[in-house]
Amino acid sequence: MATDVSNVAIRLAQAIAAGQRRALAQCCSLAESIRDDDQELLSAVLAELPAPARHTRRVAVTGAPGVGKSSFVERWGTSLINAGHSVAVLAIDPSSRRTGGSILGDKTRMQVLANSSHAFVRPQPSGTHLGGTARATRLCIPLCEAAGYDTIIVETVGVGQSEVEVADMVDLCLLLVLPTAGDDVQAIKRGIMEVADVVAVTKSDLDPEASRRAAAMLSGAMRLLQPSSEEWTSRVVLASAVDQDGLTEVDQSVADYFSDVRHDMVMRRRRRQQVRWYDDEVVAMMRLALLANSKVSQTVGEMREAIVAGRLTVPHASSAVVKVIQDVLKQGN
Amino acid sequence: MATDVSNVAIRLAQAIAAGQRRALAQCCSLAESIRDDDQELLSAVLAELPAPARHTRRVAVTGAPGVGKSSFVERWGTSLINAGHSVAVLAIDPSSRRTGGSILGDKTRMQVLANSSHAFVRPQPSGTHLGGTARATRLCIPLCEAAGYDTIIVETVGVGQSEVEVADMVDLCLLLVLPTAGDDVQAIKRGIMEVADVVAVTKSDLDPEASRRAAAMLSGAMRLLQPSSEEWTSRVVLASAVDQDGLTEVDQSVADYFSDVRHDMVMRRRRRQQVRWYDDEVVAMMRLALLANSKVSQTVGEMREAIVAGRLTVPHASSAVVKVIQDVLKQGN
Repeated sequence: MATDVSNVAIRLAQAIAAGQRRALAQCCSLAESIRDDDQELLSAVLAELPAPARHTRRVAVTGAPGVGKSSFVERWGTSLINAGHSVAVLAIDPSSRRTGGSILGDKTRMQVLANSSHAFVRPQPSGTHLGGTARATRLCIPLCEAAGYDTIIVETVGVGQSEVEVADMVDLCLLLVLPTAGDDVQAIKRGIMEVADVVAVTKSDLDPEASRRAAAMLSGAMRLLQPSSEEWTSRVVLASAVDQDGLTEVDQSVADYFSDVRHDMVMRRRRRQQVRWYDDEVVAMMRLALLANSKVSQTVGEMREAIVAGRLTVPHASSAVVKVIQDVLKQGN
Repeated sequence: MATDVSNVAIRLAQAIAAGQRRALAQCCSLAESIRDDDQELLSAVLAELPAPARHTRRVAVTGAPGVGKSSFVERWGTSLINAGHSVAVLAIDPSSRRTGGSILGDKTRMQVLANSSHAFVRPQPSGTHLGGTARATRLCIPLCEAAGYDTIIVETVGVGQSEVEVADMVDLCLLLVLPTAGDDVQAIKRGIMEVADVVAVTKSDLDPEASRRAAAMLSGAMRLLQPSSEEWTSRVVLASAVDQDGLTEVDQSVADYFSDVRHDMVMRRRRRQQVRWYDDEVVAMMRLALLANSKVSQTVGEMREAIVAGRLTVPHASSAVVKVIQDVLKQGN
C-alpha cells in the first residue's frame, strides 16, 4: 500500500477514536463509495481502528413501511441517551440521495436524535447497486463503535431484499408489527419472522385487545418458525405509541439479551457473521473477476438467453460456460 | 463431443422414451454420479430426450421427520395410479447408500408403489456432497417425464438444507404437518412455510379438534408469511391417516393447482426455476474453477483462518483474495 494512503488512514482512525464526528462522517462516505481507492483507504482505516472501550450492542429495527420505525427509533434512541448511552443510527433510506459527496434525506427525520451530542444519525442511500447498501452499513458499524457509540441501531426500509441481510450484521433483530383492524397483522416480509429476536407490537395502546390477539398469533408463528435454542428464546412484546412507558418491555428484552451471561453468545454470533460475510465476498468477487473477461461474460449471457428461450438445458449451457472459464484460466487474459 | 458418446446418448434417450425402466435407472445413476464423463453423457441424453407427451406435474412432499411422508406418498401415489396416472417417486433417503453402482435403501419402503408397473421409485442417496442430492434430483425429473411418468413426487428427508432447494425444482410444494398434543404443531423448518403451496395436517382423524386448531394456526401463519398472489393462494387442508377419503382435500387442491387455467403459471414458474438454476450453477462453477488454482485456494483458506481468528477485517482479507485472483487471470495457470 502507498505510504500516503497508510498515513491518511492512521490520521483518520485516530480522529475517529477521538470522537471527531467529521472524520466519522468522512469514513462513512468512503463506505458508501464504490470507488476502488475509497474502499482501499477505508480498508486501511478499519485495520487501524482501536477496539471499542465498552461492549457494544448492534440492533436492527425492521418492519413493514408505515409501522413507525423512524418514530420508534427516535423515541427509543432518546430514552437510551437519557439512560447514559451513546447511540448511532444507520438509517437505510430509499429517499436519500447523494449530492456532491453529502447525503440529503428527503424527509427531515429524527430531529431530537440528530441534534443530540450523544447521537450520530447517518442516512444510508439505498438502491445504488445490488448489495451496496448492506455492504456500506456493515462497514459503518465498526466505524461508529470505534467512535465511542455503544448502541448501533440499523433502521431498515421495510421493502426490498435488504432485511434478512441486515439481520446478519447485527446482534439483535427487533421486528415491529402493527396490528391492523381485526386480529390480523400486516403481512411480514419473507424470512424476517425466522430471524427476529424480539417482536414488538407497536401502537398497542390504540386497541389493546387487538394487540394482545396479534401478539398471541405472532407468538404461535414464532414457535412454528424458530427452532428452540438454549441461548435465546425470541419474545413478542407490546410497545405503546404515545408514552415512554411503552418502551419498558422492549428495553427489558434488549437488556436481557445483552446481559453479561450472554456476552459469549453475542461474540460467537459476530464471528459467524464475519465468516459468512467473507465467504459471500469471496464468491461475489470471483464472479466479478471472471465476468470482467469479455469471453466469459459473452458466453454466460448467450447461454442464459438460450435457457430463457428454452433452447438449451441447464447442464448443456453450464458446461459451455465451464469450458470458456477453463480456457481463460489456462491462457490468462 | 466424441461420436461414441453421442451415439450412446441417442440410444439411451430412445430407450427411455420407449419406457424401458432399465435405461431410466441407468440415467438416474448418471445423475447421481460426480464423474465428469457420466455428467457429460447425461447432458447429451437430456439434449436428445423428446418433450413429454402429456402435461406433467412435479410435486414435493416435505415435512419434519416422523410426520409420515413415506406412508403418505405410498397411499397417495397408489390412489393416483388407480385414477390412471403414472407416478415416479424420487425419495431423498439419508439411509440409502451406493454399493457397486446400485442404491440400496436401508428401509423397505413403498412396497405397493415399488411393485406397480405404473410407478418408478428411486431412492436418492443424500449427503454425498454439498448440493449433490438436489442436483441429482433435478436431473432425474426430466428423465422420468420423458419415460412417460406424468406425476413426479419428490419426497424430502425433512432435515438438512435441502427442503427449500427442492421447492425450487417442483411446481407444487406440499407440506405435511402433524399436530402434537395440545393445539401446537411440530416446529417447521426455516423457509418452508413461505414456499408451501398446500399444507396438509396429517392423521387428522386421531384428534379432529386438535387438527382443526392446528389448521387455523397454520392458516394464520401462512397469511403472515406469504404475500398474496393472483395466481394461487396457499391452502391448509386436513388429511386422515387411515382411510383413502383422507386424501380427498389434498387431491382436490392438487387438481385445482394443475387445472388448465393455471398451466401458464406452472410453465412460467418452471422457466424461472431453470434460469435460477443456471445462475446458481454458473457461480458455483466459477468458484470451483478458481479454487482449483492452488494460489487462489491457499490465499482463500489463509484469509479465512485470519477472519476466524479475528486477526483481519473482512475488507482486508477479501482484497488480498482479489489481488491473487486478478494475478491468476492475468497470467494464466
